[in-house]
Formats: sequence, C-alpha cells, structure tokens
Amino acid sequence: MAEILNFSESGKATSDALSDLHEHFSGDLARVETEISSHMASAAELIPEIGDHIIGAGGKRLRPLLTLSAAALANYQGQHHVTLAAAVEYMHTATLLHDDVVDESDLRRGKPTARKVWGNQASVLVGDFLLGQAFRMMVAARSLESLDILSTAAAVIAEGEVMQLAALQNTHMSEDTYLQIIDAKTAALFSAAAEVGGVIAEADKPEIDALKSYGRNLGIAFQLVDDALDYGSVGKVLGKNVGEDFFEGKITLPVILAFHRGDAEARQFWEQALQKVRMPDANRDETAKDFAIALDYLKQTGSLEDTVQRAAHYGEKAKDALGLFAPSKTRNLLTQLVDFCIARAY
Amino acid sequence: MAEILNFSESGKATSDALSDLHEHFSGDLARVETEISSHMASAAELIPEIGDHIIGAGGKRLRPLLTLSAAALANYQGQHHVTLAAAVEYMHTATLLHDDVVDESDLRRGKPTARKVWGNQASVLVGDFLLGQAFRMMVAARSLESLDILSTAAAVIAEGEVMQLAALQNTHMSEDTYLQIIDAKTAALFSAAAEVGGVIAEADKPEIDALKSYGRNLGIAFQLVDDALDYGSVGKVLGKNVGEDFFEGKITLPVILAFHRGDAEARQFWEQALQKVRMPDANRDETAKDFAIALDYLKQTGSLEDTVQRAAHYGEKAKDALGLFAPSKTRNLLTQLVDFCIARAY
Repeated sequence: MAEILNFSESGKATSDALSDLHEHFSGDLARVETEISSHMASAAELIPEIGDHIIGAGGKRLRPLLTLSAAALANYQGQHHVTLAAAVEYMHTATLLHDDVVDESDLRRGKPTARKVWGNQASVLVGDFLLGQAFRMMVAARSLESLDILSTAAAVIAEGEVMQLAALQNTHMSEDTYLQIIDAKTAALFSAAAEVGGVIAEADKPEIDALKSYGRNLGIAFQLVDDALDYGSVGKVLGKNVGEDFFEGKITLPVILAFHRGDAEARQFWEQALQKVRMPDANRDETAKDFAIALDYLKQTGSLEDTVQRAAHYGEKAKDALGLFAPSKTRNLLTQLVDFCIARAY
Repeated sequence: MAEILNFSESGKATSDALSDLHEHFSGDLARVETEISSHMASAAELIPEIGDHIIGAGGKRLRPLLTLSAAALANYQGQHHVTLAAAVEYMHTATLLHDDVVDESDLRRGKPTARKVWGNQASVLVGDFLLGQAFRMMVAARSLESLDILSTAAAVIAEGEVMQLAALQNTHMSEDTYLQIIDAKTAALFSAAAEVGGVIAEADKPEIDALKSYGRNLGIAFQLVDDALDYGSVGKVLGKNVGEDFFEGKITLPVILAFHRGDAEARQFWEQALQKVRMPDANRDETAKDFAIALDYLKQTGSLEDTVQRAAHYGEKAKDALGLFAPSKTRNLLTQLVDFCIARAY
C-alpha cells in the first residue's frame, strides 16, 4: 500500500480516505484476502506464481471495497458480499493481465508486468483462469442477479477495450466517444462492483440505482485522473511509468483536449507523433523528444488541469448519488474517497 | 460443413453420424444458431466481424450437440438447453481465439486465424467478450448448478492450457501427464457440455454421471485422434495444417509414444528437433526436413496407429457409459458419433 499512502500531501481529510476505508472494513477485507488466496491454488504451478505476482502484491482493492461499502450502506447482514468482492478483484486482475498483453506494457505499479516476466502466453491463459474462478465464486454467492450484472460487466469491459483498440487510429476522436470507451472499459466494473453489494442486500431499486451511479461516476473520475497522471500531472508520480499512454500511441482525454484546442501545427504534431510511436521501428530518442513537445502542448492548452476538472465533475455526481442514503461512517468515507481520487492528480 | 462430410469414406453407418445428429436436432440447432448470432451484436464493430469469422463460419457444433443430445436423453421439455448449448459454443470459441494467440497459429479449419487477420490484441479481447457473453447466456438459463459446472470448466480449461505451456520443455513427459493435460484442456468442456444437458433436465445422479463420463471420454478420444491427424495419420487431411503441432514444438501422444519406444538416437532427435523448432530464428527448410524424419520415427514405432488405438479405448468407455439410458434414436446417434470420431483418423 505504500505507493498509495504517499499521496497524502494535499490535506489529511481527503488523502487518507482510502486507508480509512481499508481500516473501516478491515475484517471484511481480511476475509476477501482469504477468498482471493484460496482460489489461486492449482496443479499448474505457474498459476499461483503469476497470481501471487499480480493479485497478491496488494493493489488498492478499490473495487472490492466498493462491493463491501455498498453492502454496508444497504445494511447487508450475510457473508456473500465477501465472495462477490473477491470475484470482482479476480475479474479486475484478469483484465489487467490481458491489458498488459494488448498494450505490450512492461511495467505496472512500478513492477515488471507478468507478460514481461512469464510471457504473453502465460498471461493470457492465467487471465482466463482467473475469469473462470471469478465466475465460480459468483456462483457460490448464489445470486443470479449479481451473476447477470457481473457477467454483463465482463462483456462490456471487453467491448470497451476493443473500441479503444479500434480508436488507436482516430486522433480526431470526440470527448463523447472517449467517454463511451472509458464508461465501458473502466466504469462498468466500478458500477457493477457497487451494484452487486446493493443487490445481495436486497436494497430497493432507487438505492441500487444510486449505488450504480456512484460506482460509475467514481470510475470515470478515476480513469480521467489516471489519464492526467500518465503525463505526470502536477508532478507526483505513481509506480506506473509516466508517458506509458503516449508511448503506446493511446488517445486519452488530455490528448483529445489538446488536439481540439490546438492549431494546425499542433494537430499535425499529435497525428504524426502518435502514429510514429506505434511503429515497430520507433526511435526511442525521437519519441522521448516528442513526449517533451507533447507535455508543452498539454501545458499551453491547460489540458491536464481540465482533464482533472472533468474528473471532478463526475466526482461530484458520484457524491450526490450517495444522498439517498442516511448519513453514516461508510457514506462519509465513500464521499471522501471521491475527493481522494481527484486529489491524486495534484 | 463440407470439410466434415468429406470424411465419409470408411462406411456410411459411422461416417455420417455427425450429419445424422445435425439432422436429428436440426430444429434445436437452428435455435442455437439464432442465440449465437443474437449475442454477437456490439457497438464495437470488430466484434461481430471477428465473431462471424470464427463462430459464424460453421464449426462442427460438436459441443452444443452434446448439450442438446444429453437433454434429449434425459427427456428435457424446456428451452434452456438451447441457451446453454449456445453458451458452450461461445466458451469453445473464446478458447480457440486465445489458443491461436498462445500457439501463434496462422491457420484454423483451413482459414487464416483471427489473430492472423486482425492481430493478437483483438483476438484476446474478442475472446474475453465471448466469455462474458457466454456467462450472460448461462445466467439466462437460470440454473446455478449449470453455471457452477461451466464456470469450473472454464477455469479447468485454462489450467490445462497452462500445464501444456509449462510442458513444452518436457519431452520425457509420461502418457499419464499428457492425459491429465488433455483431460483439462479438451475433455472438461465436452464433459460439462453433456453434464449440463442432464442437469437442466433434472436427471438423477447416475444418469448425470453417465453423461459426464460420455462427454469426457469422447473428448479424450477426439483430442487423441486430432493429435494423430496432425501428423497426417492414414492420409486424409483436415482443413487444419498438417504438422502444426510439430512446428509449434508441441508434445502430443504420438511424440510421447515414439520417444518412449525410441533408442538413444531417436530420443536425441526428438529433443533437439522440438527445441529447434521453437527458436525464433528456426530455419523453415531444416524443420521441414526434421518433420519428415519425425514421420519416419512415428511410422517405425507404430505411434500413430497406437494413438488411435488409445483413442478407441476411451471411445469404448464413452459408448458403455450410455448403457444406463434406454435405447433411443439419440442414444444410437451418440454411439455412432464415437465411431465417427475414431474413423476420422483413417
């Protein structure tokens, strides 16, 4: 968790929200970790090895926390929220393994990716294994409605990734098209994670809608801040490589804003630079120079700040969605979590 | 279907079993095709495009037929068997997409693979989409027990593939280890496909066990015949490239038998040849020469015939498993299907 706690410089109230949430749900989270470990066993030794590398290394557990929090807001009394939370983390981890293959990424959370260590083949297959195990866990929670929500999310996430892949060529992409992509590839799982917490608690429809809305808007905000952070944002650096998106030729909101706000010369730069970087024989020195120019354009046009502003807009929607629930410690922490996610950018 | 009907040269009774089965279940199969098409729609255009390429091109639909047949044997009266059959085909197709990436295959059923046409990235993601859709369909069938069986199969298949990947180095592999691998990577889905047909029909436990056993043993037999056919077997050639397994350095039963039966020189040949072929700079002329030598060794040791003999053993087990069911047209066809699968080898 060290990398997350390091952000806590823009005011204690918001920056510790994630660790406060971890503490508040420490009992449930410990049970989630037990579920996570117990489904990693396999006769194929590579599976626990890779599983431990990526899932055991302790991510933020943000998505499982959404399931646990949503169940708590809806006064759930059973134990199935723990199983569903673990299943959500498995789904997330499966997409990470596959994304790193698709994006040809070498680093994640500051560590070499599984595909870098064990190869693309093992990453694809272990991702498939985790997805299969995720569904087994969901079945164990015995809620067909939750299964429906999470299996739909699995298909939608893949659709979002395919849309992003197809959009690699499209520097002219509108902000709305981009939002459609991240709504699918990122926000769908945040939304589903929160929704199933309400569903197993048998919350009423408006409450379930509120949980979905909280998760979805938090997910969009989270992704946009991530997009900004990939360009270093206001300086603090995640374990993730700065410039990864750029070096993969990925079009994210900062680029879309800079492109739309730029003159003919700027637009030509973005088109050529993002095309060049995707060539197999891309010259690393040249793309590093291009990255410096890109940072300049982003600065001139205020695109990073405004990406974070857009994120803040979705964050506000997320917070308002919680208004349906009576005040509680959990509700407070979820509100602060939104501010924490935005504060990451600074 | 042309490629399948072309086999019908070793006697009508067995060689037409698959098309007889197709005809017997033509109504149900048409509904399966409708299910298959209707879940391929997506805002991401690549999805129906790739989906149509691989799933719409009309495979044998062997696995969905197992679900339909099993439901019929167990006197099922509802419609959920159609949904489950389509879900099974989606699962199978997802594994094909991912396998082609893992094996770096360029041809499947005589056509370029999706990864060859659209790239590895799209193949991984569309496979994930199909897996998500498969689970959505299973949820629609509203049977938690079927969901449990099929999600377990999904995890087991991936485990089998990981085991095979890890075994690429192991020319000394025992026949038992190899059987463990194909039991997982191939037979698990055959078994699950048949089992869920019995489960939704609420068949009793011995009948469900019989269906599982039929599917599993048919699956093992099918894979072993496939392994033999990859070396051309008795001459008839599938759309699949002959020598694909060899050129991927894959260790299959024919190789295991030839290795165990060979002298020191033969063993050295197998070890070196299968290692060489996996090198990125493998010389295509040299590996073609090695393939010819491999065929000689296989012939000398009778390894292809005996692989088919082993397949026949599992085929007999499959047929006997059906003994629990009263004689019927479906039972006859399933018995003949086993003979057809073995007859493919000749």
